[in-house]
Amino acid sequence: MEAGLAKLSFNQITSGHATLQQAVEACNAAGIGWIAPWRHKLAAGDVRRDARLIREAGLRVSSLCRGGLFPAATAEERRERIADNLVALEQAAGLGAGVLVLVCGAAPDRDLDGARRMVEDAIAELAPEAKRLGVKLGIEPLHPMFAADRSVIVTLGEANGIARQFGDEVGVVIDAYHVWWDPELYAEIERARGRIVGFHVSDWIVPLPDILMGRGMMGDGCIELRRIRQAVEAAGYDGAIEVEIFNESIWNAPPVETAARVRQRYEEFV
Amino acid sequence: MEAGLAKLSFNQITSGHATLQQAVEACNAAGIGWIAPWRHKLAAGDVRRDARLIREAGLRVSSLCRGGLFPAATAEERRERIADNLVALEQAAGLGAGVLVLVCGAAPDRDLDGARRMVEDAIAELAPEAKRLGVKLGIEPLHPMFAADRSVIVTLGEANGIARQFGDEVGVVIDAYHVWWDPELYAEIERARGRIVGFHVSDWIVPLPDILMGRGMMGDGCIELRRIRQAVEAAGYDGAIEVEIFNESIWNAPPVETAARVRQRYEEFV
Repeated sequence: MEAGLAKLSFNQITSGHATLQQAVEACNAAGIGWIAPWRHKLAAGDVRRDARLIREAGLRVSSLCRGGLFPAATAEERRERIADNLVALEQAAGLGAGVLVLVCGAAPDRDLDGARRMVEDAIAELAPEAKRLGVKLGIEPLHPMFAADRSVIVTLGEANGIARQFGDEVGVVIDAYHVWWDPELYAEIERARGRIVGFHVSDWIVPLPDILMGRGMMGDGCIELRRIRQAVEAAGYDGAIEVEIFNESIWNAPPVETAARVRQRYEEFV
Repeated sequence: MEAGLAKLSFNQITSGHATLQQAVEACNAAGIGWIAPWRHKLAAGDVRRDARLIREAGLRVSSLCRGGLFPAATAEERRERIADNLVALEQAAGLGAGVLVLVCGAAPDRDLDGARRMVEDAIAELAPEAKRLGVKLGIEPLHPMFAADRSVIVTLGEANGIARQFGDEVGVVIDAYHVWWDPELYAEIERARGRIVGFHVSDWIVPLPDILMGRGMMGDGCIELRRIRQAVEAAGYDGAIEVEIFNESIWNAPPVETAARVRQRYEEFV
């Protein structure tokens, strides 16, 4: 069965050069009902104007991207990052986003175990505030090729292990691009039941054009997207499905065209 | 404690443009006692001349690179690949290599599970011949960023799971570059006890210059090499430690210089 169009969400990074207003207009033109804004595209400070822009266009917010980046070499830097994540939680609440996506951050040195403990400690510190604001912390495992520079959390198993230490204010975000290769994927999706707070799709082009900017539009790569989507839904997730693509050539297309293509590929391949 | 120099092996791909003779001479000049040749550098067919070249230089062969590439779209192609691996096993035996390193291959389509079954089936077919020849099949999990084009076997856990289905003619090859990111790494190294038939080192440069050709010399990146080496030895492995680096700038250096640098960095960081 195909994914419901009503669940499709446009992650703003998919039109990476567009303003929030342009992205919102593109969603409207394509008949997409959800959007996931990025913090660097929001007005600094107060998000009320951005929230109104989205609401008046009739869109809902599936998540805010992104918090995280917890490990750091000094206690002072780690405190600064916690402070920034508290701001992000306020922004998420102000936008009506139910989820703050966490890209957890890399080790400041060779000590992966230490960095992983810093991630757990930071989430423990943020969890009460997330609960108070009604915003879930969504731990997104990144592909292991980002382990050295973006996230020491690299498998869904690892994300599940952390999330389960907390109440339901902490969950996992499953991005097909990051997890498709994992031999434990379907077992871990099932283990994430009740904890899945986001699902992202794009595709893995063969050969991969670029580590960061080489993601493909759904259908252009090798990921079993429909199977993964069905497994995620079978594990109880019925929230929005975000299309999130870092790709310079897609970024260079007009946002309205990109949104239309996202919808078409979503209907065909997800 | 440092790694013993007597275990250092020069994987021939580290001087990717050199002939086998040049690589052997470089090992001699650097005081390295082991070498791991690659098949595309061997004389076609009979390996007796290459075996003599290595033996007369006083070197031992730690492994032959590489077999594998099992999954394919048609039964005929899969048979051809088995046939090629039977040749590789004969070559390994002829060179006195105790191990044939397996890079297992990618899925010919989107079906990862099917490709993983093809890998297991192929190993089952090769295992009796490996046993007869006294050559171990070393399943090398590759980094997940190679899942789409080089190997559907991407974690040590997965490689262990396959190896344990067989007698001791099937083992695992642990390459630090491919597995360093894994939160289950140390548990899986321990689980591999008695099955570890090879250990490779290089380093992960941050940011990674290139997916295939961006490996670094030990010490230039973020991998906890000494900790991993000690864990591998604590799990009972006391064989050769191969330095295997795909990197164009290292390939462009004279092999004698590269081998000397390999030895120095090995003594310092492994």
